[in-house]
Amino acid sequence: MTNRHADGILDVPEFTAPDAGGVGLVETRLWHADLGPEGFPLECGRSLPEMTLAYETYGELSPEADNAILILHALSGDAHVAGIHSPDDKKAGWWDIMVGPGKAYDTNKYYVICSNILGGCKGSTGPSSIDPQTGRPYGPDFPMVTIGDMVRAQHLLIEHLGIQRLLAVSGGSMGGFQALDWAVRYPDAVASVHAIATAARLSAQAIAFDEVGRQAIMADPDWADGHYYGKSVPAAGLSIARMIGHITYLSDEQMRVKFGRRLQDRDRVSWDFETNFQVESYLRYQGSHFVERFDANSYLFISKAMDYFDVANGHLSLVEAFERVRAAFLVISFTSDWLFPTYQSKEIVRALHANGLPTTFLEITSDYGHDSFLLPNVEQESAVSGHLAHTLQRERQRGENGS
Amino acid sequence: MTNRHADGILDVPEFTAPDAGGVGLVETRLWHADLGPEGFPLECGRSLPEMTLAYETYGELSPEADNAILILHALSGDAHVAGIHSPDDKKAGWWDIMVGPGKAYDTNKYYVICSNILGGCKGSTGPSSIDPQTGRPYGPDFPMVTIGDMVRAQHLLIEHLGIQRLLAVSGGSMGGFQALDWAVRYPDAVASVHAIATAARLSAQAIAFDEVGRQAIMADPDWADGHYYGKSVPAAGLSIARMIGHITYLSDEQMRVKFGRRLQDRDRVSWDFETNFQVESYLRYQGSHFVERFDANSYLFISKAMDYFDVANGHLSLVEAFERVRAAFLVISFTSDWLFPTYQSKEIVRALHANGLPTTFLEITSDYGHDSFLLPNVEQESAVSGHLAHTLQRERQRGENGS
Repeated sequence: MTNRHADGILDVPEFTAPDAGGVGLVETRLWHADLGPEGFPLECGRSLPEMTLAYETYGELSPEADNAILILHALSGDAHVAGIHSPDDKKAGWWDIMVGPGKAYDTNKYYVICSNILGGCKGSTGPSSIDPQTGRPYGPDFPMVTIGDMVRAQHLLIEHLGIQRLLAVSGGSMGGFQALDWAVRYPDAVASVHAIATAARLSAQAIAFDEVGRQAIMADPDWADGHYYGKSVPAAGLSIARMIGHITYLSDEQMRVKFGRRLQDRDRVSWDFETNFQVESYLRYQGSHFVERFDANSYLFISKAMDYFDVANGHLSLVEAFERVRAAFLVISFTSDWLFPTYQSKEIVRALHANGLPTTFLEITSDYGHDSFLLPNVEQESAVSGHLAHTLQRERQRGENGS
Repeated sequence: MTNRHADGILDVPEFTAPDAGGVGLVETRLWHADLGPEGFPLECGRSLPEMTLAYETYGELSPEADNAILILHALSGDAHVAGIHSPDDKKAGWWDIMVGPGKAYDTNKYYVICSNILGGCKGSTGPSSIDPQTGRPYGPDFPMVTIGDMVRAQHLLIEHLGIQRLLAVSGGSMGGFQALDWAVRYPDAVASVHAIATAARLSAQAIAFDEVGRQAIMADPDWADGHYYGKSVPAAGLSIARMIGHITYLSDEQMRVKFGRRLQDRDRVSWDFETNFQVESYLRYQGSHFVERFDANSYLFISKAMDYFDVANGHLSLVEAFERVRAAFLVISFTSDWLFPTYQSKEIVRALHANGLPTTFLEITSDYGHDSFLLPNVEQESAVSGHLAHTLQRERQRGENGS
């Protein structure tokens, strides 16, 4: 058994080893969008002259192209949702527990796609990409991108892959924002939505945590107003932002069980500001590890996109926002998730019900906080696989009826 | 009506103006402890050669010296619990709503004392004090002080004021830590304890937030390993630490009602990293304001003292820790306080019950989060005044019986 460091969880209950029973070796591909002279227009009014999206696919697209599922990742995720990139990889993709042969997103039945978001730093165009107009990284001059911009970029990719209608769009946390936006923006292209551990918009408390994280990054002298590429990265600031994020991804209960007040590698307190408690050591590890794999400017831009997002933007209400939607919904929340609490999922569910949309809502009892959706959970798995099977059946009946 | 900025609350429900019905003009006094050649020994093994405590008193000590109440302040508090220092003061002491003529801590009946904690920066000896051995501020070389050290220092002050037994020790948050420590350390000197919005020890989650705040301070180049006195203070780092703290002092509900997703001084989002949302503006204000009034090294030392504290330290259990205690307890928690949740108060209550100690427990419904105890609340006020009256009656009967 590997000790997998899932997003926020150290030494979680035993995972399947990445090379056993999974999708096996996969690779990230790059797609360069074929843009016209106006480039890719953004909600902020600016546009991108070039756009690349990194993506991975698993399974086979059916001849009818009716079995495609788009998985949307959260703040720090990437296109690598399942499998391994090399036989030496000790860690599989970020949702390997859910995506693979015989798993909830069963790659024997479905064609699964995941792309790195626009604004990210894992292959898709983002602040660390080269601005073709200057030959240097965009840095802070990258245009502000929104969740809607990310979704419109994904839509181009999906069309490029020959898919007109997705069997499901699925995402947890910020991935759920994208899934909801997909359903509203492209009602004909979405048969079902899995909105997991998410909300119609961030709470004031969540915006507050984001803002403190951004302040920490921008206060780091190494941030250098965002022009740090080729120099020292703002490691201290990004690490602090990540530490704050991590606390919000876990639950009070889980931290009590996992760390309590146990000391790290010592019998007694040190009477100084060294790491004393396990929880401190864990957070410092998570912070410094994150710096190695994530771009600070991407963190700034993506967290801001989250703050700006509201499904009801441009609509009179959440109910009105869902008026044109025709998808079936699976909405899942977790009891100990205090970053995206259940009451926020229920707001979504009420607005869906008001529109008469087929909606399955599930609140799963879990002590793992917001990160629960990233961890093995039979309830989540069976709800997803059941909803998918039912949706595929309905879609094929719909196809036979020529509707 | 003044717009009082209570600890964490902007524009809270109408307060009494500081000059109306309060204790009026007061002054902070300094007491220089009369220490022997060993100085003041600390739990960490080091000692302080000199020790000053800043304190204020209100009301009159009875001839029997049986009406004294010691109020203990929280992380960022000071000795100035009630009244004003100058007729121009727009803001009264930090618990003016609770301390004054006719108020819960009725200064017509009781003699109220509050001192700035050891390690603080409001007149008591702390890291910003001059080290007599070097002639320069202690800075990071200040010895680590504990909640127990703070309490032992207060005990010297109380004896200096001619008091052998306190009618009550009372504190919220970290003030509650001190109150509990008083009861355990000096069982004969404490008739009653008001432990409000507190715990027997910090949770792992609370330690985690403290650690991130400390990291933010220590990552600020202006911190200069703690030797910043006479130079630029680590404003950015301390501000971030305070912003984190503030979020934990408020509740999700309250932030939703108070700020929601409303924009600050603008009609639409700015598409950059300027302040957009009211909640961001509020936090930045709180952070920068705090820098003007608090010492970053004190923040480090005091937050560490909080992390180290555990009533059960040196005991086999919490129940055993209370074995020698003889005080009557009033334990108060608030429904929306997620930093010191009700379950932590109940832990204390169970351990008190196991020792057969007279215990009143009250969970007050409030949306104001951890800061609830600092805000006007009839339930808190009547519980405190009733408990005090009963305790004084019992104490005087006890005196008459010669026990």
